[in-house]
Amino acid sequence: MALVVQKFGGTSVGSIERIRNVARRALATQKAGNDVVVIVSAMSGETNRLLALAQEMAKIPDAREMDVVAATGEQVSAALTAMAIHVEGGEARSLLGHQVKILTDGAFSKARIKTIQGTKIFDTLKKGRIAVVAGFQGVDENGDITTLGRGGSDTTAVAVAAAIGANACEIYTDVDGVYTTDPNICPSAKKIPRISYEEMLELASLGAKVLQIRSVEIAMKYGVPVHVRTSFSDAEGTWVTGEDKALEDVVVAGVAYEKNEARVHVVNVPDKPGIVAELFGDIADKNISVDMIIQNVSREGQDRANVTFTLAKTDLARAKNFIEEVAKRLGASGVRYDEDVVKVSIVGLGMRSHAGIAAKMFRLLANEGINIQAISTSEIKVSCLIHAKYTELAVRTLHDGFIGNK
Amino acid sequence: MALVVQKFGGTSVGSIERIRNVARRALATQKAGNDVVVIVSAMSGETNRLLALAQEMAKIPDAREMDVVAATGEQVSAALTAMAIHVEGGEARSLLGHQVKILTDGAFSKARIKTIQGTKIFDTLKKGRIAVVAGFQGVDENGDITTLGRGGSDTTAVAVAAAIGANACEIYTDVDGVYTTDPNICPSAKKIPRISYEEMLELASLGAKVLQIRSVEIAMKYGVPVHVRTSFSDAEGTWVTGEDKALEDVVVAGVAYEKNEARVHVVNVPDKPGIVAELFGDIADKNISVDMIIQNVSREGQDRANVTFTLAKTDLARAKNFIEEVAKRLGASGVRYDEDVVKVSIVGLGMRSHAGIAAKMFRLLANEGINIQAISTSEIKVSCLIHAKYTELAVRTLHDGFIGNK
Repeated sequence: MALVVQKFGGTSVGSIERIRNVARRALATQKAGNDVVVIVSAMSGETNRLLALAQEMAKIPDAREMDVVAATGEQVSAALTAMAIHVEGGEARSLLGHQVKILTDGAFSKARIKTIQGTKIFDTLKKGRIAVVAGFQGVDENGDITTLGRGGSDTTAVAVAAAIGANACEIYTDVDGVYTTDPNICPSAKKIPRISYEEMLELASLGAKVLQIRSVEIAMKYGVPVHVRTSFSDAEGTWVTGEDKALEDVVVAGVAYEKNEARVHVVNVPDKPGIVAELFGDIADKNISVDMIIQNVSREGQDRANVTFTLAKTDLARAKNFIEEVAKRLGASGVRYDEDVVKVSIVGLGMRSHAGIAAKMFRLLANEGINIQAISTSEIKVSCLIHAKYTELAVRTLHDGFIGNK
Repeated sequence: MALVVQKFGGTSVGSIERIRNVARRALATQKAGNDVVVIVSAMSGETNRLLALAQEMAKIPDAREMDVVAATGEQVSAALTAMAIHVEGGEARSLLGHQVKILTDGAFSKARIKTIQGTKIFDTLKKGRIAVVAGFQGVDENGDITTLGRGGSDTTAVAVAAAIGANACEIYTDVDGVYTTDPNICPSAKKIPRISYEEMLELASLGAKVLQIRSVEIAMKYGVPVHVRTSFSDAEGTWVTGEDKALEDVVVAGVAYEKNEARVHVVNVPDKPGIVAELFGDIADKNISVDMIIQNVSREGQDRANVTFTLAKTDLARAKNFIEEVAKRLGASGVRYDEDVVKVSIVGLGMRSHAGIAAKMFRLLANEGINIQAISTSEIKVSCLIHAKYTELAVRTLHDGFIGNK
């Protein structure tokens, strides 16, 4: 007998009929001898409807009240799921964030979980009932309702699984697992049966948006085995777990790409100590995350350097004026932008013990005539910035070169 | 400086623009030097939408979960109202049933309020904020969400006003007060400036559906002055208050009618002790409320009686089979039904000290050729059952005969 947490996203609870399917699956898991905790998102479209309603009231709605509105989406789907379990002949109780209770900090719309009490969940399970927990929501020290931000139900699921010591946390989604790369642009992409938390973190942050990154961090911290799978079949999906020997033998687990990158080129910055620190310190103060950074000595003279970095394309508009102002203050001769870039990355635990992986990546790209504009590396990842027009070609080349094309 | 509770119904918060009006009114009341607590219903149509969603899931949805779904209607409108107050330059906090907290019994969908804690409300007011309380909802001893049943926001408003010792409870609705009778069928109907709790109870239960009857009971119990008024103008409406000399001088305060009546005629019941008690005991066991009761000696013999009673037309279908079964068991010779009936009533504190009011009522009806099928009286009310076709004529006749036609 195991203790299983099952999380169903917005698509999986997107209609009355789909919620019935969720109920049947949870009951089947219970009948197989398990205690079952179900975590649900809002029905697909509902969160957007609620946001639109609030934004009709105020362009920037009061953050505290926005969370009170947003939390109703999961409240409704949790209660409907409990109803569905009753209809299917089982017993269930919905539990909201403040009932569980899931205590968070007070950062409305992006709260972080501090503690989770398991008592109400265990009381429910002890009576042979399925506990249906509303995802995405919590309550702060003042008793105010908070939400965890988009995709927060994954975080709820993994955090609940950690708090109650669940044997597994199943994340049901509309894809059947994590793939070695995007199957839409690379037909030879394969489902990964097992992947480590570390690899999943790198793949998630690089664009394989299957699992909320924070939920993977929590799973890794508490060692919760996560099973990403589809709610439309019984097929096994992808297990995200701790490292072991078998996983380390895989050199490259996946190939990711990130289109939301823009390159900024600050030309002819005086090459004095502290100048680069000032530039990036000022950017960080504006809450803009910088990704890759390259500093070159300028061709025009020994005392000047060019600084290149990338940031999220979606941040570029609000960053432009500010970057130009800083560049001017630092004595740079100009700033150039390039939005036609994409970052391709290879990720794998095995890189730590295999030499020459980066070199092979550069060679594979060069063979296709793809110029590399920037490089960044970590222990288990190598990323290259290239022209956006090569995205598909680069992904296919790297995938087939490292993982194979069958 | 007064402490004022303002309750806004579904129509008053039926759109973003209307919620803005609610915010403006609450802020104006605050600026006039008052502490303001706002109680809101769900946006009109929302509760029905939620009920329909639940009923799509289950014909009879689990009662506990139904309340979890239903409570989201008021949760959203309370948060939107707080947002609107911010937009209008004020400060506000929404408070849900479990936050206030409004402790109820565990009777889902028709819970009764046990206690209300005022601390969170007072904390909010002390900071110069308007407290926006979600109507209709509470929480039971287990922390489960409960709802008070249809019209429950009136009850929340009056109960909160009693709990915090408010100087007045304003009920905003789409009519501008309580009228002496239905203006739709009697053009001389007048707005009543003041009426006693007792009269309001009789008028409410008789069909003048302006105020939830339970809210009037609570207002009477705690002596909360209630002001029923429209949210579409600043006009004074109707004050519902305790008795005083001026109110007692009014003989008939209002004329009400109730169309939801059906007459049941049980023919030739053996006239033995306990038979009638058995009949009505069995009916009560089925949770069917009987209104008027008349027992006549049958013309066919001294040992047999006819029993006539009325019940809600909406209960008749489910009661019919059962009544016939009981009648047969008791030895009655048959049961007849009449749905073409209406109950007209006159209500007034002054009746207690004025003789001949009932006689005048019968005479007024007789003058118009209206036959009286049944009569019931209380200290401050006389009701007559008549054929439904005379409804409008009877109401106008009684109104103009007792209250005047100007």
